[in-house]
Amino acid sequence: MPETHVRRRAALRSRLRERDLDALLVVDLRNVRYLTGFTGSNAALLVHAAGDDGTVFCTDGRYLTQSARQVPDLERLIERPCPPALAALAGAKGYGRTGFESHRVTVDDLDVLAEQAEKVELVRAPGLVEEQRVVKDENEIEALRMACAAADRALADLIEHGGLRPGRTEREVARELETRMLDHGAAGPSFDTIVAAGANSAIPHHRPTDAELATGDLVKLDFGALVDGYHSDMTRTFVLGAPADWQRELYDLVATAQAAGRAALRVGTAVADVDAAARAVVEAAGHGDDFLHGLGHGVGLEIHEAPSLAKTGEGTLSAGMAVTVEPGVYLSGKGGVRIEDTLVVRDGDPELLTLTTKQLVVV
Amino acid sequence: MPETHVRRRAALRSRLRERDLDALLVVDLRNVRYLTGFTGSNAALLVHAAGDDGTVFCTDGRYLTQSARQVPDLERLIERPCPPALAALAGAKGYGRTGFESHRVTVDDLDVLAEQAEKVELVRAPGLVEEQRVVKDENEIEALRMACAAADRALADLIEHGGLRPGRTEREVARELETRMLDHGAAGPSFDTIVAAGANSAIPHHRPTDAELATGDLVKLDFGALVDGYHSDMTRTFVLGAPADWQRELYDLVATAQAAGRAALRVGTAVADVDAAARAVVEAAGHGDDFLHGLGHGVGLEIHEAPSLAKTGEGTLSAGMAVTVEPGVYLSGKGGVRIEDTLVVRDGDPELLTLTTKQLVVV
Repeated sequence: MPETHVRRRAALRSRLRERDLDALLVVDLRNVRYLTGFTGSNAALLVHAAGDDGTVFCTDGRYLTQSARQVPDLERLIERPCPPALAALAGAKGYGRTGFESHRVTVDDLDVLAEQAEKVELVRAPGLVEEQRVVKDENEIEALRMACAAADRALADLIEHGGLRPGRTEREVARELETRMLDHGAAGPSFDTIVAAGANSAIPHHRPTDAELATGDLVKLDFGALVDGYHSDMTRTFVLGAPADWQRELYDLVATAQAAGRAALRVGTAVADVDAAARAVVEAAGHGDDFLHGLGHGVGLEIHEAPSLAKTGEGTLSAGMAVTVEPGVYLSGKGGVRIEDTLVVRDGDPELLTLTTKQLVVV
Repeated sequence: MPETHVRRRAALRSRLRERDLDALLVVDLRNVRYLTGFTGSNAALLVHAAGDDGTVFCTDGRYLTQSARQVPDLERLIERPCPPALAALAGAKGYGRTGFESHRVTVDDLDVLAEQAEKVELVRAPGLVEEQRVVKDENEIEALRMACAAADRALADLIEHGGLRPGRTEREVARELETRMLDHGAAGPSFDTIVAAGANSAIPHHRPTDAELATGDLVKLDFGALVDGYHSDMTRTFVLGAPADWQRELYDLVATAQAAGRAALRVGTAVADVDAAARAVVEAAGHGDDFLHGLGHGVGLEIHEAPSLAKTGEGTLSAGMAVTVEPGVYLSGKGGVRIEDTLVVRDGDPELLTLTTKQLVVV
């Protein structure tokens, strides 16, 4: 899909011109992938503000063949390390103000860049590509859709094959989920899978242990799949056996808060107000202090990216933003419930990407 | 093993005093783990040159319980983000010259540090902990031994259960190897597993595809396990069915070169000479140009760390260095052989950690 990358670079270029930059040196590998489609482990990109003519992709000799296939439409430089080589090239091409990703370049690496970029004015330009990545295009949303589908299918398989049952360990369940995601096309899990049973479910980011699932446990699964570089993120909480009254009440509370958060996902809404919409439900039930984190976050080429749907989050929602909505209520020593979807903000209702039911499932 | 971390911090402190530093701000998570044993995903450490009194560990609220358990012996600060909070604390504690990891801190993050560290003189101090990590202590070597054993056992299981057979895809073999490493106690693979069959074996860093293994193929497996944060690294090359003469000759050549490299692993030997010892064997056979990479690299908390056993490598070997020895000869379009061990440099002979046979195994 070279046209996609051509379009992304064109959009970036207009941002460079707004900042009077002649070029931008992109060193973050996810940003390079976003702008070129290159999936290798070492690369950098010099984006010329005037056009793809003068834009140079750099990688090392290991990726000679792969880069020729994935980045056929740009001038290529095979050298190592790439950033100083591209800085020198910026000088040779007569670029003046050249932005660099000051949120990624280390203090020591900037020295090396500056040595090579004698004739160039290096200008801090943090986050330019990340700002553009906040609104996903349809190619990105399709990758997110596939990543979410791999996770949905893996969870359905797990349940159908009796994978959630008393006596299994949290670690075994996590491993089965991850293996089943691979079966459904994932390149891997999108982060370390969380399986938390019983009192452990009250720990927001519990790591799976050899603790065994037991009848009566709340079991919280927070996991996702990685497809084409894009990350899905979903949490579901189950009850093993008949739920106690407090478990059902807790579940219903979180489900209601989650629905309120999803309903608030409208173009133009302040992100802090989305958090507030879900939080108000939890606070009204007297559990405000047990909701220990923000409501959600952007997802894409990173598992956590902008926007932050939190009290302190800034800005408003735009169509094409991909975000999670994941309220949780945690009763220490007893158990917790979190319910999380990945969705895309659209004109009108948001598009739900994680399709597993949010009804209380008793296994 | 708190004594281990106490000892490591004491060794670091004498290095700080040599540099007239009052303290060092450690932000690299692997370095923090090395110095404290903390395994969470967010932390930093302010090491006081005068003693553990005045040394402060910082993490965020998610790791309140875990950090109390893993880092019981240091003052703890629960705040987010950690580096500027520790920089401010350095000022409050009256530290003057405070080193920071300029090879890790970004240009933008240094601004934030400097704002918080008004009363402190921030001094570039790149690589201090990494330099210390080059020589492994016995706790580290034991972790490497377990990581290598997990890989050895996984490969033995794969072969024993007929996992290498015509008709299977490279991807299937890679997945089975990774699953079997988990069975043997690995937290995960130590890097993306390489399975390269037939002509693909001539590509040094081939990513597994849906290509099927066929009778007569050279099959190259390069993989490792992650145990307690430590990485193992091993390559073995097999032949499916009876080997052709050229395959046996190629194999014997690489095996001879690899043995020469291992024999050169002696305390005091220049790392470039270790590379030369193996390379001379390949060059004498007229295949110097087909040995496309350095001979090996250090392994530990990172899969690639110092020292670099390459033509351009600097320095000499010390007892306790953990390194790979991995010559390869690649005949483009035809096939390649690489044989790789992980070893520890010792007084006298090196200790071999990857125990799988290096005889030509015909499966």
